[in-house]
Amino acid sequence: MSDHVYKLIEIVGSSTEGTDQAIRNAIDKAAGSLRHLDWFEVVETRGHIVDGRIAHYQVKLKVGFRLD
Amino acid sequence: MSDHVYKLIEIVGSSTEGTDQAIRNAIDKAAGSLRHLDWFEVVETRGHIVDGRIAHYQVKLKVGFRLD
Amino acid sequence: MSDHVYKLIEIVGSSTEGTDQAIRNAIDKAAGSLRHLDWFEVVETRGHIVDGRIAHYQVKLKVGFRLD
Amino acid sequence: MSDHVYKLIEIVGSSTEGTDQAIRNAIDKAAGSLRHLDWFEVVETRGHIVDGRIAHYQVKLKVGFRLD
Amino acid sequence: MSDHVYKLIEIVGSSTEGTDQAIRNAIDKAAGSLRHLDWFEVVETRGHIVDGRIAHYQVKLKVGFRLD
Amino acid sequence: MSDHVYKLIEIVGSSTEGTDQAIRNAIDKAAGSLRHLDWFEVVETRGHIVDGRIAHYQVKLKVGFRLD
Amino acid sequence: MSDHVYKLIEIVGSSTEGTDQAIRNAIDKAAGSLRHLDWFEVVETRGHIVDGRIAHYQVKLKVGFRLD
Amino acid sequence: MSDHVYKLIEIVGSSTEGTDQAIRNAIDKAAGSLRHLDWFEVVETRGHIVDGRIAHYQVKLKVGFRLD
Amino acid sequence: MSDHVYKLIEIVGSSTEGTDQAIRNAIDKAAGSLRHLDWFEVVETRGHIVDGRIAHYQVKLKVGFRLD
Amino acid sequence: MSDHVYKLIEIVGSSTEGTDQAIRNAIDKAAGSLRHLDWFEVVETRGHIVDGRIAHYQVKLKVGFRLD
Amino acid sequence: MSDHVYKLIEIVGSSTEGTDQAIRNAIDKAAGSLRHLDWFEVVETRGHIVDGRIAHYQVKLKVGFRLD
Amino acid sequence: MSDHVYKLIEIVGSSTEGTDQAIRNAIDKAAGSLRHLDWFEVVETRGHIVDGRIAHYQVKLKVGFRLD
Repeated sequence: MSDHVYKLIEIVGSSTEGTDQAIRNAIDKAAGSLRHLDWFEVVETRGHIVDGRIAHYQVKLKVGFRLD
Repeated sequence: MSDHVYKLIEIVGSSTEGTDQAIRNAIDKAAGSLRHLDWFEVVETRGHIVDGRIAHYQVKLKVGFRLD
Repeated sequence: MSDHVYKLIEIVGSSTEGTDQAIRNAIDKAAGSLRHLDWFEVVETRGHIVDGRIAHYQVKLKVGFRLD
Repeated sequence: MSDHVYKLIEIVGSSTEGTDQAIRNAIDKAAGSLRHLDWFEVVETRGHIVDGRIAHYQVKLKVGFRLD
Repeated sequence: MSDHVYKLIEIVGSSTEGTDQAIRNAIDKAAGSLRHLDWFEVVETRGHIVDGRIAHYQVKLKVGFRLD
Repeated sequence: MSDHVYKLIEIVGSSTEGTDQAIRNAIDKAAGSLRHLDWFEVVETRGHIVDGRIAHYQVKLKVGFRLD
Repeated sequence: MSDHVYKLIEIVGSSTEGTDQAIRNAIDKAAGSLRHLDWFEVVETRGHIVDGRIAHYQVKLKVGFRLD
Repeated sequence: MSDHVYKLIEIVGSSTEGTDQAIRNAIDKAAGSLRHLDWFEVVETRGHIVDGRIAHYQVKLKVGFRLD
Repeated sequence: MSDHVYKLIEIVGSSTEGTDQAIRNAIDKAAGSLRHLDWFEVVETRGHIVDGRIAHYQVKLKVGFRLD
Repeated sequence: MSDHVYKLIEIVGSSTEGTDQAIRNAIDKAAGSLRHLDWFEVVETRGHIVDGRIAHYQVKLKVGFRLD
Repeated sequence: MSDHVYKLIEIVGSSTEGTDQAIRNAIDKAAGSLRHLDWFEVVETRGHIVDGRIAHYQVKLKVGFRLD
Repeated sequence: MSDHVYKLIEIVGSSTEGTDQAIRNAIDKAAGSLRHLDWFEVVETRGHIVDGRIAHYQVKLKVGFRLD
């Protein structure tokens, strides 16, 4: 009920659509292998440009989850 | 006409849809009680995760408004 | 094949729609006069408020491009 | 149930005892005039020295509370 | 005599003359509505340019005051 | 004897008592599954407030340990 | 009328008189070759000392201007 | 009565007990050789871990004192 | 082909020779247990001094790798 | 002629007049006891307020000087 | 003789050899098109990894040069 | 055996050869007048350019040493 300990991992999600979708892709991936995901914090937003257009939005996140 | 003074407040908007909507929700709330809102600055972007999916995007903003 | 040198410029894109569109507007403008655009990094997100509503989202970016 | 907006205020608590007590003093003061206090974030820890001994610990906090 | 609590507000002063005057304008404004002002901290210095000349210096400050 | 490589993980300890105990709780948890813990660095101190009182102190740490 | 794009350049102005004059010297120089200058942001303030006295104040600025 | 000049030194105090005691140990040491100590600012909090337990808390401080 | 997700780990490499070798030692170690290493970012450079000479250069890195 | 080593000290100058004078007061004091002063870097600008008016501007500087 | 104005550009040099060589490659490139280069400041050090080995060291620099 | 106090000084080493040598030059100088040097932390890396070539690499360090 109290004194929980949480761990944070740092991941980068990418998307051709936009920054929110890049965040969702990162969370989806993390949720595939970790339980008790609790919050995320955006660390950095970048992107890759090809032929003068944005090819990928890239969002670096910290994702926190509770340890059992 | 010149030498105005502005005040900034710090608020956090949340949204189930995405980061832009979280910003709009925060500005809407601030506009309900303050006049002369002039600009905002994003301070931090986070979110809450429930059952492996993003439940809320949370954006911390500073909002500046002119003092009469 | 290697040891390339890149230059970064700093620009601010604005949009009435949202932050992703502000980024795209900035990249579009840069692509009109520079070749070999390779990546961008978001530096700051702000916006202008008029009559209690967001008039423009403004995103400050660094854009990197390869020097010939 | 969702899309809440929060406000943050910045306060400095002081204590002759230590840093945790300085935080508690600040929260106690804030709780005297604000409802729905939800979280705090430590911004800075300093102190005042008199005659070679710590006279006051001073902790600057942001305190977040939900707007109705 | 001890264990005081202080609050900080964030304001922006502007001036056509220079940065020190922009600070004084901000403090003057704050002093018109708040008692027990105790210190300020410069957060950011900017300005507005019109026709190639500085129209306003703008200094963002935090101002601390003692709560009764 | 030399040229060791260390890894850092990021964890958040919480405690109802205070910040030092939150740090100890986090280290205790990490020590349960990792060997050769060597140092920690405090990244952020926050807390949760319920009914106007601090319910949990939360300290985010990086913990470094030597890889075999 | 909307969706403008701005570019920022980084310059250092120096002055024997003081920091405000160093800013003005930098803006004057920029205004000699660039149109539509709109704002500046102070990045860093330094100076050079000769024979125990300040020989030059040096202020590093970002200057923003609208692209046509 | 005015226009004092202060100097800051940077020191690290350590303690087996906790962070407040590490601060006090550092101030005690500084007070042994310097007069007119006036304030301290916490720069960093770290610690050393031995056998899965905290062996020393280490707090890096700046300590300011008035020059005669 | 797109929308990859990357993970970052934080490691410290050490070397008696210099900073570049400390980076290489860290990457070598990481490459022994992780596939698809893609980039690194230097976070901090420190070192240990013994008898007035540098005994180890220590470079803290983030290392990014693609998740399958 | 080459490979010089410099030392930096951190000092705070204060002035009733303004920020540039606070810098000059700090440099004057440092020049009274140190030779080969070469440059300064502004770290922080603050001030003390009494009766709603600025009593002292306080500028924290690093001052660099060449070691013989 | 005085009151010079300097401009800074931001560039990234890369090298297969190491970080110092990446800096030199960036300066060499800048010197090919700009006169009066005066100083550089390292902003960020990164690198690209291929098959578990460092393929390129990448150093982001600001380079300052005097405007005529 | 415990509760040691350390002091940090800030120095800048320069070298015509490279950044590691600039660090070594700074440590050598510090070791000439201080005992018990224990660690260093790199704060900033810069350099001076003459005739389009790097004349000096300059590395700003904090050096920590144990007080008796």
